[in-house]
Amino acid sequence: MLIQASCQIELEALAHVPAVFMLRPRSGASQFIVKEEYIVDPLVQITEYTDSYGNLCQRLMIPPGPFRLESRVTADCADQIDVHTEADWVPVSNVPDEVMQFLLQSRYCEADKLGGLAAEIIQGYPLGYAQVEAIRQWIYNNIRYEYGVTNSSTSAMDITLNRVGVCRDFAHLGIALCRSCNIPARMVVGYLYQLDPMDLHAWFEAYVGDRWYTFDPTQSQPRGNRIAVAYGRDAADVAFASYFGGVNFKSLQVAVEAAQPVLPTPSNG
Amino acid sequence: MLIQASCQIELEALAHVPAVFMLRPRSGASQFIVKEEYIVDPLVQITEYTDSYGNLCQRLMIPPGPFRLESRVTADCADQIDVHTEADWVPVSNVPDEVMQFLLQSRYCEADKLGGLAAEIIQGYPLGYAQVEAIRQWIYNNIRYEYGVTNSSTSAMDITLNRVGVCRDFAHLGIALCRSCNIPARMVVGYLYQLDPMDLHAWFEAYVGDRWYTFDPTQSQPRGNRIAVAYGRDAADVAFASYFGGVNFKSLQVAVEAAQPVLPTPSNG
Amino acid sequence: MLIQASCQIELEALAHVPAVFMLRPRSGASQFIVKEEYIVDPLVQITEYTDSYGNLCQRLMIPPGPFRLESRVTADCADQIDVHTEADWVPVSNVPDEVMQFLLQSRYCEADKLGGLAAEIIQGYPLGYAQVEAIRQWIYNNIRYEYGVTNSSTSAMDITLNRVGVCRDFAHLGIALCRSCNIPARMVVGYLYQLDPMDLHAWFEAYVGDRWYTFDPTQSQPRGNRIAVAYGRDAADVAFASYFGGVNFKSLQVAVEAAQPVLPTPSNG
Amino acid sequence: MLIQASCQIELEALAHVPAVFMLRPRSGASQFIVKEEYIVDPLVQITEYTDSYGNLCQRLMIPPGPFRLESRVTADCADQIDVHTEADWVPVSNVPDEVMQFLLQSRYCEADKLGGLAAEIIQGYPLGYAQVEAIRQWIYNNIRYEYGVTNSSTSAMDITLNRVGVCRDFAHLGIALCRSCNIPARMVVGYLYQLDPMDLHAWFEAYVGDRWYTFDPTQSQPRGNRIAVAYGRDAADVAFASYFGGVNFKSLQVAVEAAQPVLPTPSNG
Repeated sequence: MLIQASCQIELEALAHVPAVFMLRPRSGASQFIVKEEYIVDPLVQITEYTDSYGNLCQRLMIPPGPFRLESRVTADCADQIDVHTEADWVPVSNVPDEVMQFLLQSRYCEADKLGGLAAEIIQGYPLGYAQVEAIRQWIYNNIRYEYGVTNSSTSAMDITLNRVGVCRDFAHLGIALCRSCNIPARMVVGYLYQLDPMDLHAWFEAYVGDRWYTFDPTQSQPRGNRIAVAYGRDAADVAFASYFGGVNFKSLQVAVEAAQPVLPTPSNG
Repeated sequence: MLIQASCQIELEALAHVPAVFMLRPRSGASQFIVKEEYIVDPLVQITEYTDSYGNLCQRLMIPPGPFRLESRVTADCADQIDVHTEADWVPVSNVPDEVMQFLLQSRYCEADKLGGLAAEIIQGYPLGYAQVEAIRQWIYNNIRYEYGVTNSSTSAMDITLNRVGVCRDFAHLGIALCRSCNIPARMVVGYLYQLDPMDLHAWFEAYVGDRWYTFDPTQSQPRGNRIAVAYGRDAADVAFASYFGGVNFKSLQVAVEAAQPVLPTPSNG
Repeated sequence: MLIQASCQIELEALAHVPAVFMLRPRSGASQFIVKEEYIVDPLVQITEYTDSYGNLCQRLMIPPGPFRLESRVTADCADQIDVHTEADWVPVSNVPDEVMQFLLQSRYCEADKLGGLAAEIIQGYPLGYAQVEAIRQWIYNNIRYEYGVTNSSTSAMDITLNRVGVCRDFAHLGIALCRSCNIPARMVVGYLYQLDPMDLHAWFEAYVGDRWYTFDPTQSQPRGNRIAVAYGRDAADVAFASYFGGVNFKSLQVAVEAAQPVLPTPSNG
Repeated sequence: MLIQASCQIELEALAHVPAVFMLRPRSGASQFIVKEEYIVDPLVQITEYTDSYGNLCQRLMIPPGPFRLESRVTADCADQIDVHTEADWVPVSNVPDEVMQFLLQSRYCEADKLGGLAAEIIQGYPLGYAQVEAIRQWIYNNIRYEYGVTNSSTSAMDITLNRVGVCRDFAHLGIALCRSCNIPARMVVGYLYQLDPMDLHAWFEAYVGDRWYTFDPTQSQPRGNRIAVAYGRDAADVAFASYFGGVNFKSLQVAVEAAQPVLPTPSNG
């Protein structure tokens, strides 16, 4: 369906502070960007580049005083995520070159230390999609969702020990467990329609059956209508905002709604 | 200033025809995309990829019957193009690796055959920007602008002989003459505010003084307020539409206007 | 088998002349580079970059006086090229994004003008590999191989008219005919074991059955033991040498032979 | 000078184990690869790809039983590394897009936790190169070089606390301290002529004065004659070997020596 999402950030800086934002989704396999806006107040110069994962990054200098940034997007999204329980494991020797990096350890995903837990969880499941789904279910059932307990340095190992976290932590654990079974996995941040409570969201994708599939350990059931904003190995790659100086973060408001189709301008003739 | 541009295409196909469009500008050195829309009627699935020049390409299947596609964009553009008459020639050995390809010949720019003409035109001018400006002026003064005389196979050599063409031909000639002097040059297609008559436009950029500068041989004076939509070696790389089957092209409407700034949504608090 | 190839170029320049060479093969699908050397005399500084097709390009300043450059390579090559007569045509809508560029026209391959000839040649053949093989056979049977008739500006159209050319021209015609049937095709330059007379060689690849296949219209039969040195849309992208100034080309010597396996240095223990 | 380096690895696997090696240097700013060999025994099929940092990665399946892999390279290297004590700090807003990622935290480089230490070390030094050199000196003077104390999970923070480590740890600390001062820094692994004891080596580069400079905190003085083999954000990106299964690592032998120039084959004429 057509989804309209927005994210509004309010900041206050004491001096000029360079910053990089990742708040501009691109069209992709299961989303086409129909409309988007990127608004700042006061107006400042913004430049944009593409990082090594293909994410759009906006660079700007936050001016002293109150500053607001809003990103709005309307995207044509898949109502359902693809579920293919038979999708087979891809032997490492068949993993495409560009996917290999998603097998390695990364800052928040200590795959090397989670092999034992992963082995327990996937025991008895067929190789591939079914294993990842078992991992997703296990996280959903065993990790408590709670704000404010974890922070930006919390890793998959920490979650394993404390059994509590937020979407980002759930995703890290899913990724780490997959990688410890030699299943490539990557982090996704973005919007989810009817997420409750509404916020920026994070989930993960696993590479089985020769393609990426979506898994969200915070939800009881597979749910579509997602807008992916950025991809990476883990949260270190996909911070929606990076500041290089002191910034007072005031508020973040996220809204996701169903949208009406837009038609072309009637022609003159 | 803030510029709002749109391009509406009407087509009619007899059968399903695969197509690739390049109608989605990206933020760049002298433009930031504030808002954009990409609308098709009837609705079809669209996917997007980035070509080797960084251009966004939209792939879709044109359905049988009437089909309309509209791209709208609002961009914060430089009012003036940078003019730096002292900008020096960059010796080939100092040209950055990624710029080297813009020294080579390409389909519509037979640089190897235009060395004599280029030598005449630039005689007496200091190396670099001044030479490119001399080339731009020479084209403006010596080539007649006229629709319908040239077509999609017309090259820089043809223009040199016939002395007539449209913006695309003017750009090809400028590019070929620059390259024959070992000055890297590339094609740009996009929008120009107050172009008369309004249409999709083409111009070129030359690499002197260690950066790209804009040159438009169709205009008497340097003019800013441009939105670049795609870059390439010549028109072969930047076709705004490529069809892989029979399509009846009905109309193309382009509009470029001044726009009002957009403000963030008032916050709830 | 293990193949050892070398290419030696002798030049003479009157002044310092910047140049770019493409004479360094990379490991790829059907070749692994076991050993390579890149030798110049007199010694000059060389830098290297990768172009947008993934080819390695060597930049250097040719000094005044005699200059020799030699590239030697030992590669583990496939004895046979893959032949799969059932490989199906890939509908344009299924062609991978990065392959799309090989459907477009390019400098030496006027696909738009060769649709009629292509239709004649492929009539009655199943879609896909069989069509490309029919094209390859037709070129082999209808174009006369002869040195010195064509030059660096000869295109596929020219060959169609004059019916004579060298490997590069044969490849251009094959590429143009494939593209006119909406089959992606690209140029390859490199070495072929037991080519007679020995020289740098050129052939083409076509994308059918979801992968690239090798076709060589200069040979009566499929032959393996090839070392691909560079890939591109056509010869404009894969010149083995580009000079930006006056250079006197003295000689080019190419040798390709069977090689003996190299073993690791015996260990100390 | 011309340097010849080699690295020989002996492994033993019980079953077929997929692996990725990064043992093939590329030509770069201060090194040109004149000759290289990549040898395995027994012979297995190897494929190669380029990662997002531009490093060449060799993929192969390690067979059961003893396995040896040897990489040999001859490179023309800069005798001295560039030292430019006046090179200025690059404000974050001027850092090139592709360098931005080297400002962020990474797995082994907790820049956010080392700001206090960095501030102490660089106090009183001019911004830029001089600060990085102060950091390098501080590490050299305050961290003890010792094998076997640290391991593959040791991070910059760990080193700060324990004050002992190997080249890889020294580099991580240098990188983390630089980044905490908003100076981009990256990891380099490779060879150093006359390193004592000889081994694979690691150091770091910092981006000041609009380019990358080499810093080696394990050495008392700046030393040239280095062959960089791979670049990354930290050791997580540049493992010389990654195994996806059980492998018994037997030995690693490294040799680096001065080499004699190679001349082209005498021509026939």
